[in-house]
Amino acid sequence: MSDVPFKKVAIIGLGLQGGSIGLALREHAPAIATTGYDRNPDTRTRAAERGLVGHVADTATEAVADADLVIFCVPPMAMGDAARECAEALSPDALISDVGSSKVTVARALGEALPRHLVIPAHPVAGTENSGPDAGFASLFQGRWCIITPPEGADTAKVERLSALWQAIGAKVEIMDAAHHDLVLAITSHLPHLIAYTIVGTADDLQEVTQSEVIKYSAGGFRDFTRIAASDPTMWRDVFLSNRDAVLAMLQVFTEDLTELQKAIRLGDGEKLFDHFTRTRAIRRSIIEQGQDVATPNFGRQG
Amino acid sequence: MSDVPFKKVAIIGLGLQGGSIGLALREHAPAIATTGYDRNPDTRTRAAERGLVGHVADTATEAVADADLVIFCVPPMAMGDAARECAEALSPDALISDVGSSKVTVARALGEALPRHLVIPAHPVAGTENSGPDAGFASLFQGRWCIITPPEGADTAKVERLSALWQAIGAKVEIMDAAHHDLVLAITSHLPHLIAYTIVGTADDLQEVTQSEVIKYSAGGFRDFTRIAASDPTMWRDVFLSNRDAVLAMLQVFTEDLTELQKAIRLGDGEKLFDHFTRTRAIRRSIIEQGQDVATPNFGRQG
Repeated sequence: MSDVPFKKVAIIGLGLQGGSIGLALREHAPAIATTGYDRNPDTRTRAAERGLVGHVADTATEAVADADLVIFCVPPMAMGDAARECAEALSPDALISDVGSSKVTVARALGEALPRHLVIPAHPVAGTENSGPDAGFASLFQGRWCIITPPEGADTAKVERLSALWQAIGAKVEIMDAAHHDLVLAITSHLPHLIAYTIVGTADDLQEVTQSEVIKYSAGGFRDFTRIAASDPTMWRDVFLSNRDAVLAMLQVFTEDLTELQKAIRLGDGEKLFDHFTRTRAIRRSIIEQGQDVATPNFGRQG
Repeated sequence: MSDVPFKKVAIIGLGLQGGSIGLALREHAPAIATTGYDRNPDTRTRAAERGLVGHVADTATEAVADADLVIFCVPPMAMGDAARECAEALSPDALISDVGSSKVTVARALGEALPRHLVIPAHPVAGTENSGPDAGFASLFQGRWCIITPPEGADTAKVERLSALWQAIGAKVEIMDAAHHDLVLAITSHLPHLIAYTIVGTADDLQEVTQSEVIKYSAGGFRDFTRIAASDPTMWRDVFLSNRDAVLAMLQVFTEDLTELQKAIRLGDGEKLFDHFTRTRAIRRSIIEQGQDVATPNFGRQG
């Protein structure tokens, strides 16, 4: 980029998302100064060792001083407190954003904490099952979508600057209404995590099948679910608390569909099962065609 | 192996499993002659081109002539018919086995079709989402478990020969009761597939979220489920028809657990969610430690 969209970006929260943004900015937009803060001192130490940002500050206020963009990268329900901690030191023109997985609740919390600042929420749909200061990497956002949910009437130029920042670190940007975002992510991310967490727990609790058997024979399909069920518990607790209504609505539809397939199994209705199982193949083909997953069998994993 | 456990192995059904067994035998036990048959002529042509077995026969009877081991690699509900088609040409001493994903029903079907032969069922817990004569590869069984479910009183020497064959192509062998196998696989394989097929269908049907949105934002977790929901519909229809009771029993437990987490979300019980999400991490760690999955984030997939 010849003209950087921001001069100094402050990242509050130096886990998987915050760390990856910092590393990606340092790689792709080195002209932008980056500072960071995390309330956990061990995370700050490790962040400095890895060079996740140009400068790891000892306090939130030090991190945000003079920043023209502050990105909150903490769990959804911690956003309000994190914002309040920075409030007194924020430049009046600083743009406020975040990376939270739910947007209506988070936008409200940030808006209430910083009533005199423009808040333009964002959510990069990218991640791994790892968390903490060692989890981030510069290419996390390459080819992934970042959804920006500006409030009504938000300054278009500022939305464009935020978009430019995400594009600079490899993301594709989509503008969306916050409520619609929450519905879309409920089905593409939150419900899949809830189901994965559930079945891994179910397997763990069984009396008839030992845990050792579950582990040994997990290559039959179960192991796929354990990856996302290993995601950060604090983050995911907050996702479900902050996007409750949309998650419950999607769960209701899922449960109806599961009950229908259960009935087909009970009645031995092979035709219904076959039709359903045939239809679901097309979606994977599209996901691969659009570069959102790899085509190699078993995700290309070895061993 | 200095001493091969079988002289001639016939493989009936040349898809992912049959093809992989053929390729693995040709690579690791070239002293064993292999023949194969598939009722689909296009599959036979392609199997011959790829060299999945030493000789692709034009009929099932030609394939099994003189074989001392016949492995049926067809969908569970097709086992009986496939066995009957071979019956007249089978050597009286030929050992009969299979690779079906459910074992009580399949053992019964093979036993009824071939009442004068010893049937020792087996199930290699290995696969990919691909099917057909192009899907097989020689290393599919490397480090994976193969569960053998001998009938009561089966000739120990023959069980050992079958075990030796699976070990020769890289599998680890476990002996198990057929009914227990069906319960174990119901939770480690069949229920995960049912849930994946369900949620992919749910996402496809939604009115509020477009299919294009589901595809674009699938990296939030959903894409993981689309892999196993792209598995062979005929095979999976048959799995649910042939292992109905165990699948319905596991589904009942899963549904109870899901309802409990649903209630925790509805009541905003963050502590309960956090505790559950913390517990499920341990299982993934064990699966990785025991070599049943890779440790790299996102299954190590690129892009």
